[in-house]
Amino acid sequence: MSSSNEQPNFITCKAMVAWEAGKDLVMEEVEVSPPEPHEIRVKVVCTSLCRTDITAWESQAIFPRIFGHEASGIVESVGKGVTEFVEGDHVLTVFTGECRTCKHCESGKSNMCQVLGLERRGVMHSDQRTRFSIKGKPVYHYCAVSSFSEYTVVHSGCAVKVSPQAPLEKICLLSCGVAAGLGAAWNVADISEGSTLAIFGLGTVGLAVAQGAKLRGASQIIGVDINPEKYEKAKAFGVTDFLNPNDCKEPIQQVIKRISGGGTDYSFECIGDTGMVTTALQSCCDGWGLTVTLGVPKVKPEITSHYSTFLSGKTLKGSLFGGWKPKSDLPSLVNKYMNQEIQIDEFITHNLPFEDINKAFSLMREGKCLRCVVHMPN
Amino acid sequence: MSSSNEQPNFITCKAMVAWEAGKDLVMEEVEVSPPEPHEIRVKVVCTSLCRTDITAWESQAIFPRIFGHEASGIVESVGKGVTEFVEGDHVLTVFTGECRTCKHCESGKSNMCQVLGLERRGVMHSDQRTRFSIKGKPVYHYCAVSSFSEYTVVHSGCAVKVSPQAPLEKICLLSCGVAAGLGAAWNVADISEGSTLAIFGLGTVGLAVAQGAKLRGASQIIGVDINPEKYEKAKAFGVTDFLNPNDCKEPIQQVIKRISGGGTDYSFECIGDTGMVTTALQSCCDGWGLTVTLGVPKVKPEITSHYSTFLSGKTLKGSLFGGWKPKSDLPSLVNKYMNQEIQIDEFITHNLPFEDINKAFSLMREGKCLRCVVHMPN
Repeated sequence: MSSSNEQPNFITCKAMVAWEAGKDLVMEEVEVSPPEPHEIRVKVVCTSLCRTDITAWESQAIFPRIFGHEASGIVESVGKGVTEFVEGDHVLTVFTGECRTCKHCESGKSNMCQVLGLERRGVMHSDQRTRFSIKGKPVYHYCAVSSFSEYTVVHSGCAVKVSPQAPLEKICLLSCGVAAGLGAAWNVADISEGSTLAIFGLGTVGLAVAQGAKLRGASQIIGVDINPEKYEKAKAFGVTDFLNPNDCKEPIQQVIKRISGGGTDYSFECIGDTGMVTTALQSCCDGWGLTVTLGVPKVKPEITSHYSTFLSGKTLKGSLFGGWKPKSDLPSLVNKYMNQEIQIDEFITHNLPFEDINKAFSLMREGKCLRCVVHMPN
Repeated sequence: MSSSNEQPNFITCKAMVAWEAGKDLVMEEVEVSPPEPHEIRVKVVCTSLCRTDITAWESQAIFPRIFGHEASGIVESVGKGVTEFVEGDHVLTVFTGECRTCKHCESGKSNMCQVLGLERRGVMHSDQRTRFSIKGKPVYHYCAVSSFSEYTVVHSGCAVKVSPQAPLEKICLLSCGVAAGLGAAWNVADISEGSTLAIFGLGTVGLAVAQGAKLRGASQIIGVDINPEKYEKAKAFGVTDFLNPNDCKEPIQQVIKRISGGGTDYSFECIGDTGMVTTALQSCCDGWGLTVTLGVPKVKPEITSHYSTFLSGKTLKGSLFGGWKPKSDLPSLVNKYMNQEIQIDEFITHNLPFEDINKAFSLMREGKCLRCVVHMPN
């Protein structure tokens, strides 16, 4: 790595580059441009692997690309017009930004920023170009973050300043998965005390939903997963009943209805399986049953359900990043962690050096981890 | 008609009987049993035709049957154990009852009574038999009401006592359609002042949604219907913009998004077309857009939508009878009508004698009416 102490200049550093779908990432030397106006360049400290990275790496058509979006880091330099950050600030990156000026950011009821939301094609917002290159050829971004690189450039609206006391190797999980689950439980479903719920998929997001539900005083938290190894971990996050559909002789929604006395108050689809959204709807109770869908499907993108499901008073609601407005809300989540009000450490099953990132991909594809935290070189 | 002044006995009276799907109803003499315990026998005064009667008459397999569920009447006799009603009480009948004791009735957040809800097969709750017969052969009920008869027997939980001052020839509309639309706007969507909405289908239910929205101070009420004759009437109920999909060169959801500045806050499917539920979802805004589905589909029963619709923060919610608990809530709606706080008269486009009920079916199938009120003989 080399950098100038004067004006921000190009940095040459290591990045794990995806050259084609589903193939191992390759450690490369990349050029990282200086931040353009309203952008910041971040020295990534830790990045954890999220299932969405894998889904995109397996299926999406934009290559070469630098994946990674759940990350923490330190501001290295700032572009013109940036007043919110200075060099040395500790930050979390976020895949969905907060411009603070659009109708949604101002609404108080939506985190779907219309300026820095999900609509991107691997390039930066301001000029539709990349900030990464190898020998002059562009390397594309992912989810406005691209944290599988020692340095990355993000829009200043896609980073959140956090307390320098907070351990970056832990709170990187609040950059996506853990926050998404907690927010789905608290903001989107607004789980009430004594209520019942079913969670489909006991990965990090699903278990963060369980944690959120437990903290709200839910009385029954039914976890559904085909991997029996998940159960022990799930208990620690509050799951009271574990169901493996492969062990059930009747459809899982019937089992859930029976053990919850007619269907749960809430159900959460955290797998990314649209068929399971239908099952989740069928698992919750008539009248006020609410199904929250969080997953990004890998295969069939259409959600289908019989109209009578809704006629009986059910609701289907989507959750993106748990409804959190990142700049407005993440600092308080970090504080909750610092005050030991929420658990993060328990999600971290593996710590790996940067060069072993492909191992993290394998662990997650095999269902053998919750979160693998990848530590960048100092 | 003949009846005993002592114990309730069989009554012989006129009823319009459906003998087979889609065929004209036939005036018949029917025997109406005395009310069993917890039932009441009602002299129907007025019954208005609702689209659901037609959908069931066109498609359902239970015949012979007496349709009709939107009605008003006077209690003729009561079965054992009935303490809430006495002979002479004015009532509205309801297709979904309120037992006041089940988990849902007690919940304060659901009108899906688990005892007297929708699950029926043309028979009475207590003994799974009918109270109508012709020459000893059973004639089946519809929607727990069967108001196309001079007399009918209903469970006491499927009738609501109303003020004897309220005109039964008007308030019968609160027995289903008008209440369903107002409740969808007020209880289910909880429309806020200054908001925008789109209503698919400008029949009675859709226009009652418009009325509810107008009374809540909605700023833009977009009505969608392929029948241009609906527009003038719709204006009176608060519709500000009328769209006929057949006149639009682009998909209707795009037009709605454009004229509402990015999608409406709410959308309501009042046609009974599951494809239109998808369109309604696409017509409302990201972040907080809420689609309420009220219609009972005539054809394809599956609602389908791309997962990204929900990932962008939208919600799909079902509404049955507008969320009203009939006994708890309908009397106050009747009062609102008496105090001129809500409009009912404007929905009544036709008044017909009982023997002309088939004309009401034709008018509704041809889209030439809102509500036809059928007046029973004195």
